[in-house]
Amino acid sequence: MNPVETPVALGADHAGTGLKATLREALEAAGHPVLDLGTHGPESVDYPDFAAAVAAAVVDGRARFGVLVCGTGIGISIAANRNPGIRCALVHDTTGARLSREHNDANVLALGARVIGPEVALDALRAFLATPFAGGRHERRVRMLTPDWSQRP
Amino acid sequence: MNPVETPVALGADHAGTGLKATLREALEAAGHPVLDLGTHGPESVDYPDFAAAVAAAVVDGRARFGVLVCGTGIGISIAANRNPGIRCALVHDTTGARLSREHNDANVLALGARVIGPEVALDALRAFLATPFAGGRHERRVRMLTPDWSQRP
Repeated sequence: MNPVETPVALGADHAGTGLKATLREALEAAGHPVLDLGTHGPESVDYPDFAAAVAAAVVDGRARFGVLVCGTGIGISIAANRNPGIRCALVHDTTGARLSREHNDANVLALGARVIGPEVALDALRAFLATPFAGGRHERRVRMLTPDWSQRP
Repeated sequence: MNPVETPVALGADHAGTGLKATLREALEAAGHPVLDLGTHGPESVDYPDFAAAVAAAVVDGRARFGVLVCGTGIGISIAANRNPGIRCALVHDTTGARLSREHNDANVLALGARVIGPEVALDALRAFLATPFAGGRHERRVRMLTPDWSQRP
């Protein structure tokens, strides 16, 4: 499968639906297929459910990357990292997004809709998608986070 | 054991030793016992080892909180959250530190020594230590992150 044709999975709690919609629109405008796993409405939901859904999509290969949004990004990133195949980076700007790919081979980006604005989030997402893993000394550390390395997405 | 007498565990990779020393000095000056689990020198080390040591100290009850430092805080926070008893919050300022305690009952604070300065980190640490968990609707979500809730530290 052409990796660029594999979707980016999106997930958010009720605090993150507005930013998720903004990110979805930008991804689709740039030609990236999107797998939007919700939530879709304003009702209060529990962020671990949406973290688990996006994590499963990335680990199963249904998505090449995941993007998660909650109020701060903290809870949803903790929840995503419960899945040993996920390296979810909570990011506040392009620098964090770039380094999370270069150094940590992050496969899920977490953003806080109540702490960063939409233009900062969009730039972080673009940096995340544009930056390859640097490998080298970082690969040994990433392997320590990913016990089943041969099966990694 | 008086919780205030239970140490705060510190851990860092080689990129975080300078900030770790600053945080240690401030904690000790404020009367908080510290359990410094390294690294202690400039040699290149692997952040997952220090995340695991601090996570174990918190889960075992040898420490009441943990503080982890690497270059961005990303790798070391992912590593700490591999332990299901840990809720490690990567934080960039006092707002994140406060909300990680109020909403997520975070028990480990992660900081990026190459992305925030020492005064910002010190304020974040003070906010983290000073803020109680808000409970309420947040408790259901925190329980979802912590399967063995009755055994939580």
